[in-house]
Amino acid sequence: MRRVDVRASSGSTEVIAGRGAIAELPAVIDALEPRMLMLVADRKVHGLHWEPLASLFAGPKLVTHLIDGEKAKSLGEAQRILEEMSALGFLKDDLVVSFGGGVASDLGGFVASVYARGVPVVHIPTTLLGQVDAAIGGKTGVNLPQGKNLVGTYHQPRVVVADVDLLSTLDLEEWRSGMAEVLKYALCFEPDMLDDLARGETLNHDLATQEDIIVRCIGIKAKVVAADERDSGARLVLNYGHTVGHALEAASGYSMRHGEAVAVGMAFASRLAVRHGVADPGLVQVHLDALASLGLPATASFDRAAVASAWSRDKKRRSAQRWVLLEAPGSPVVREDVPDALAEEVLEEVAQ
Amino acid sequence: MRRVDVRASSGSTEVIAGRGAIAELPAVIDALEPRMLMLVADRKVHGLHWEPLASLFAGPKLVTHLIDGEKAKSLGEAQRILEEMSALGFLKDDLVVSFGGGVASDLGGFVASVYARGVPVVHIPTTLLGQVDAAIGGKTGVNLPQGKNLVGTYHQPRVVVADVDLLSTLDLEEWRSGMAEVLKYALCFEPDMLDDLARGETLNHDLATQEDIIVRCIGIKAKVVAADERDSGARLVLNYGHTVGHALEAASGYSMRHGEAVAVGMAFASRLAVRHGVADPGLVQVHLDALASLGLPATASFDRAAVASAWSRDKKRRSAQRWVLLEAPGSPVVREDVPDALAEEVLEEVAQ
Repeated sequence: MRRVDVRASSGSTEVIAGRGAIAELPAVIDALEPRMLMLVADRKVHGLHWEPLASLFAGPKLVTHLIDGEKAKSLGEAQRILEEMSALGFLKDDLVVSFGGGVASDLGGFVASVYARGVPVVHIPTTLLGQVDAAIGGKTGVNLPQGKNLVGTYHQPRVVVADVDLLSTLDLEEWRSGMAEVLKYALCFEPDMLDDLARGETLNHDLATQEDIIVRCIGIKAKVVAADERDSGARLVLNYGHTVGHALEAASGYSMRHGEAVAVGMAFASRLAVRHGVADPGLVQVHLDALASLGLPATASFDRAAVASAWSRDKKRRSAQRWVLLEAPGSPVVREDVPDALAEEVLEEVAQ
Repeated sequence: MRRVDVRASSGSTEVIAGRGAIAELPAVIDALEPRMLMLVADRKVHGLHWEPLASLFAGPKLVTHLIDGEKAKSLGEAQRILEEMSALGFLKDDLVVSFGGGVASDLGGFVASVYARGVPVVHIPTTLLGQVDAAIGGKTGVNLPQGKNLVGTYHQPRVVVADVDLLSTLDLEEWRSGMAEVLKYALCFEPDMLDDLARGETLNHDLATQEDIIVRCIGIKAKVVAADERDSGARLVLNYGHTVGHALEAASGYSMRHGEAVAVGMAFASRLAVRHGVADPGLVQVHLDALASLGLPATASFDRAAVASAWSRDKKRRSAQRWVLLEAPGSPVVREDVPDALAEEVLEEVAQ
C-alpha cells in the first residue's frame, strides 16, 4: 500500500492506493468528523461490494443514492441528490463519498463542489479507469445533451481510497478501457512501462503488477495536477488521444467505451504527429503494437461529419484547436499549428 | 470614477465604479477578446437600459438570455442557459456578461463557473445591492426548494462595472434594500459612515454621496474577500444580520425583500449581542436609529418555528451556529457560544 499526495492550488488530496487500502476508510472518516455521509454509489458496484464493506462506514448517519451508468451524469440527477442533502440538513462539515467508476466520482464530486459552495468529498474508485484517472485531480463533470462533461468544476477530493482488490470483479471490457489510460501515461510520461503493458491481458489477473502500475500512474497524475490544476499547460498533456476520443464517444451516442475511443484517439494522434512532421514514422507502430497487446482498437467506424463537429466543440478548445502530440514516446508537445484540413485527412486513416 | 482591485486566491477582479463607468465597457470586452457574449440580463433592466447601451457591446456575436426575478435562480434555468451556450459553440475564451441585480450576477456567475469548468464573466450590476455586495467577491448561487443559495460556487468575475447612473431607475424599495447592506458595512467596519446614512432617504437623489458610499463599500468588501475568499474567517462578518435575514426570507416564501430581512436580522443581532453580554445596551438604539432613518424595518411578522428551522439549515452553519455580533459599531466578533435557547428568546423581541 502506498500514499501519494496530490497538492493542487485549490486543495490537497491524499491518495491511499494498493491492495487492501479500503481498510483505511474508518480512519479517513474519523479524521473528517462528519455527522452525515451521502454515499453516491453505482448500483452494480454497490450490489457486488457493499456487504463486506458496510461496517467500514459505521459511525455517521449514512444516506445512499444509487446511480445507473453514464446517464446519471446530468444536472437533473445532481439536483435530486442536492435536494436530498438539503432536506436531510446536510451541513458544510458533512461528507460526500463516491463509490464506483468515473461516473460516481464525476457526479459525486460535482455535487460536493456546489452544495453550500463546497463540501468535502472522498472517492472510492472501483474501476481501473477511476483509480488511475477519473478520481484523481479534482475534475468533476456532468453531461449536456450537446456533449460529455460540458458542465463541471475543479474540486479536489480530500482522500481517494484506490483498493486494487476491488478491481477483481471488473469485466474484460472495463479492464481494457482503464488500460487505455494506463497506456496514455506510458506513452506520454513513462515509456519503460510499455514493456509491462506488452504482456497485455495476462496482466488482468496479476494484481501485484497491476498495483505497481496503478501506483505509478497515480504518481504521474499527482505531479501533473500539482503543476497545472486547471489545464492551462502541463495538464493538457493528459488529454492525449482525448480530443478525437471524446468526439468519437459523442458521435456514437456514448455507446462506445471511453477507453476504446481514447485508444483510437491515440492511434489518430500518432498518425497526425507523423504527418505534421513532429515525429518519426515508427511512432505509429509503437502505438499499434501496444494497442494490439491490450486488445484495444486502433480504428473505428464513425460518421466523419459528426466527429469533426464534436471536436470543434471540445471543451478544452479555445479559438485554435490545441493538439497533444508525441515527438517520441515520453516527449509530449502541445501544438496549435495543425491545419484543420490535415486533421480531417488523418481522421480518414483511423476510419474503418 | 474609481478602480478597485479584488485579489482573491482563486482569481482577481477589477471593479470600475462610479458615475459613467459603463463607458469603459468596450475596452473591457476588447481586452478579453471573446468571439461570443452570452448576456444574462434581467428582463426589466434590459427593457429600461438596453437601447442607449447596445452600441457598447458591439464586436463579438451577442446572445441574450432574459430572466425574471428570483425564480430564475434555479438549476433548471442554469441548464437552459448552459445548453444554449453549448448549442452555439461557446468556447472557454468566450464571455458571460450579467446585467441586472443580484439574481443576474448570481445566476450568470454560476453558469460561467460551471460551463467547461469555468469561463470568464463580467458583471454589470444595476442595483445598489448588486453594486455594493452581490456582484463583488465571486460568490455565485442558485436556490433549491429547501432554501436560497444552497447551490453555488466561488468564481471571481474578471471585471465588475458598477455605474452609479444606472441606479437612477431604482424604486424606493429596491434602493432601501441595498441600503441595508450599506448599513451593514457601516455598522461592522466604518461607523463614521453612519452620519451620512442618518440623512436617510434624501440620499436617494444625491448621486455624488451615493458614489462615494458605493466606492467605500466596494473597498471594504475587496479587503475582506482578499483576506478570506471562502468564508472561513473574516468574510463571515459580511454575514452580519444574514443568518436570521435568510431565515426570514425563506419563511416568507421569499416575498420579503433581502434588505428588509437583513435589516430585521441586524436589529436581532444587536439585541442578541446585548443579551449575551457582548455589547452595551446602547448598541440596540444605534441600530434602531439607523434603520428608522433609512425607512428599514426592525421587526417583522413571521412564523417562529419556520424561522428557527430555516436558520438551523443556514449554509454557513457547521455543527455549532456561528453568530456575527458587534461588541460596538466597527468591532465585529464571531461567537459560537450563544445558546440556541437565548437566540430563540431574542427572536421573540423582533417579532411583531
